[in-house]
Amino acid sequence: MTYADSAGAARKPTLAVVGATGAVGTVMLGILSERKDVWGEIRLIASPRSAGKKLTVRGEQVEVVALSEEAFEGVDVAMFDVPDEVSAQWAPVAAAKGAVAVDNSGAFRMDPEVPLVVPEVNAHAARVRPRGIISNPNCTTLSMIVAMGALHAEFGLSELIVSSYQAVSGSGKEGVDTLREQIAAVAGTELGTHPGDVRRAVGGGLGPYPAPIAYNVVPFAGSLKDDGWTSEELKVRNESRKILGLPGLRVTATCVRVPVITTHSLTVHARFENEVTVAKAHEILSTAPGVVLCDNPAEGEFPTPADVVGTDPTWVGRVRRSMDDPNALELFVCGDNLRKGAALNTAQIAEVVAAELTGVS
Amino acid sequence: MTYADSAGAARKPTLAVVGATGAVGTVMLGILSERKDVWGEIRLIASPRSAGKKLTVRGEQVEVVALSEEAFEGVDVAMFDVPDEVSAQWAPVAAAKGAVAVDNSGAFRMDPEVPLVVPEVNAHAARVRPRGIISNPNCTTLSMIVAMGALHAEFGLSELIVSSYQAVSGSGKEGVDTLREQIAAVAGTELGTHPGDVRRAVGGGLGPYPAPIAYNVVPFAGSLKDDGWTSEELKVRNESRKILGLPGLRVTATCVRVPVITTHSLTVHARFENEVTVAKAHEILSTAPGVVLCDNPAEGEFPTPADVVGTDPTWVGRVRRSMDDPNALELFVCGDNLRKGAALNTAQIAEVVAAELTGVS
Ligand SMILES: NC(=O)c1ccc[n+]([C@@H]2O[C@H](COP(=O)([O-])OP(=O)(O)OC[C@H]3O[C@@H](n4cnc5c(N)ncnc54)[C@H](OP(=O)(O)O)[C@@H]3O)[C@@H](O)[C@H]2O)c1
Ligand SMILES: NC(=O)c1ccc[n+]([C@@H]2O[C@H](COP(=O)([O-])OP(=O)(O)OC[C@H]3O[C@@H](n4cnc5c(N)ncnc54)[C@H](OP(=O)(O)O)[C@@H]3O)[C@@H](O)[C@H]2O)c1
Repeated sequence: MTYADSAGAARKPTLAVVGATGAVGTVMLGILSERKDVWGEIRLIASPRSAGKKLTVRGEQVEVVALSEEAFEGVDVAMFDVPDEVSAQWAPVAAAKGAVAVDNSGAFRMDPEVPLVVPEVNAHAARVRPRGIISNPNCTTLSMIVAMGALHAEFGLSELIVSSYQAVSGSGKEGVDTLREQIAAVAGTELGTHPGDVRRAVGGGLGPYPAPIAYNVVPFAGSLKDDGWTSEELKVRNESRKILGLPGLRVTATCVRVPVITTHSLTVHARFENEVTVAKAHEILSTAPGVVLCDNPAEGEFPTPADVVGTDPTWVGRVRRSMDDPNALELFVCGDNLRKGAALNTAQIAEVVAAELTGVS
Repeated sequence: MTYADSAGAARKPTLAVVGATGAVGTVMLGILSERKDVWGEIRLIASPRSAGKKLTVRGEQVEVVALSEEAFEGVDVAMFDVPDEVSAQWAPVAAAKGAVAVDNSGAFRMDPEVPLVVPEVNAHAARVRPRGIISNPNCTTLSMIVAMGALHAEFGLSELIVSSYQAVSGSGKEGVDTLREQIAAVAGTELGTHPGDVRRAVGGGLGPYPAPIAYNVVPFAGSLKDDGWTSEELKVRNESRKILGLPGLRVTATCVRVPVITTHSLTVHARFENEVTVAKAHEILSTAPGVVLCDNPAEGEFPTPADVVGTDPTWVGRVRRSMDDPNALELFVCGDNLRKGAALNTAQIAEVVAAELTGVS
């Protein structure tokens, strides 16, 4: 494929957004409209149900086409923001047609022939893609990994013990609707002193959750795997190891859903090969690309989901050195799970590929 | 003092409840009305503002008297459910009058001459009280320490790394009112995609918190101490060490407030001297006094604040053995911060003292 047209001018690559009508796809169209425009044609693809629908991207109306082999004709980069099984079937089709597939689903993340990329941490890994597919990590891992990568580069990471405070939009629209409905149901009711009061007040609709999520926290996200671990907890472990290139990294996660709409938070106990200082950690975090240091609790400055939602970076605060271990830091980290946690990171990976294809960076 | 009256019959000890009109005091009167009745007279004490008010305990109306030296005349055990400075001044006065003071405030917890007692863990410590004062731990420590004590007895605890999900009633009535008002303000509004949307929706009233608490989590509880730690985080460390009698125990806490009314939750990474198994941990937790094991995630069984509120025990679920360390367990723990976290534990300590005084147990 050549990136100069017949007249010799550089041709901008063609991008396909598969799943353009979904929750992540919708955020993606907004992000593509905001960022430095590296794309020629942007083709929007969804299920046959959405074919013919018009969506706005870069200020223009674009008609959605149905997913098919032909839809990838002439496509250089194809983003997949669709369910796992749709990615599993169609990303290889796009790759066979010559596109680089950038997949937001869980279908290929742990495939040893598919790189798992966070551009601030391991952009180089995107170049080695034997299947023509690059994976985007899950949102919980993505909400902390940029900050961890920066600290790892300086101190050498040896262990992560994390607890999550995960937003309901990580469960898609159904999660958001469930929290909103439950909040509407409990607002104004008197409760809080008897077991079951909250269950009664929220009514029957638990949505995607195994317990009420309004006025509650739920220590279960994803599905149950071996030995009592959830899929979400294992993703944090396995994906952190793969992104950082540390297959033996000690990683323990406990994932808890909280009544927040968007932006995941995590407490992190991070242990390093080398001794740490808060001053040095501050220096690293305040200069690392994609990270905002927000750490002045004396002035009430630390990140919270309410202040981080809608922004691109990973926010870090409450940085402390462990009192028992000069090699360990405690941190509180927030990231918008729909932006860096999904669409933004995919857009960044696609841009890395575009730069490689066109020789421009 | 003798506990037989002139006719030789056993006399039941006299209890004073100082702060009977407060949030903890109110829960206390309920608890005293439910438990095995070991008390003779129960005297209710508060500020002069409340003198003459009548409150119900054990089904009877009792008139509140103003705090004074005379109010402790003939009192055997005096509970203090009042602000720190009131306890600091008046618990020694009660002790000087011959009463054993059981203090729920933070005034004496780290005093080396005052035992810090959780009856399931260190009831014996209540007997050695050179100042005549016994302290009750803070609610965050109390929400997990009974379970940790049971596991420590079997495996030998060496490290705790905990993250809290703390309820607003830990900040008293002001915390509860703030969350309710903010929930009423945000219910029905559209928000969640721009920084500041939640701040605007909740209006100006942040109450005792440095950020909105509805649709948010706030990684700051208590006041700021040295090196970026909060008072709440240091209490978890210092009080856990003292209760368990392990002055060198490694303890790290990150305390986060969540939009839950009552019941604190914690994720716990607990490391032990000896190798652990989930089966053995289950056995210990299912038989330990004051602990309920609730750990069958395949059936949706794990504790959440909504199901634990209003109950007495410490609930434990999501028990896993660390994949990196055969000596470490991961747990999710819930406890009602107004019951075991405050009034219940104080009532239990007072009963331990009553049994000692009367020779009955
Ligand atoms: N939500 C998050 O925080 C998050 C974070 C990271 C990753 N992800 C992942 O991103 C992916 C998309 O998630 P989402 O929340 O955006 O899902 P969603 O809102 O349900 O959107 C699904 C999209 O896939 C399309 N689609 C479904 N079945 C299709 C088919 N058979 N053929 C063609 N298109 C099909 C839908 O098109 P129609 O509208 O035509 O049905 C829609 O555009 C998932 O793999 C998810 O796990 C989500
Ligand atoms: N809330 C919790 O989860 C929790 C948990 C553990 C421990 N604690 C501790 O328990 C204590 C009480 O907390 P709370 O939430 O119940 O407080 P609260 O609702 O403000 O009640 C304070 C009580 O103290 C009395 N009081 C105040 N000043 C007094 C004075 N100068 N002389 C005599 N009585 C006075 C008040 O009597 P009037 O009504 O007459 O003013 C009232 O009975 C505090 O030390 C708190 O830190 C609270």
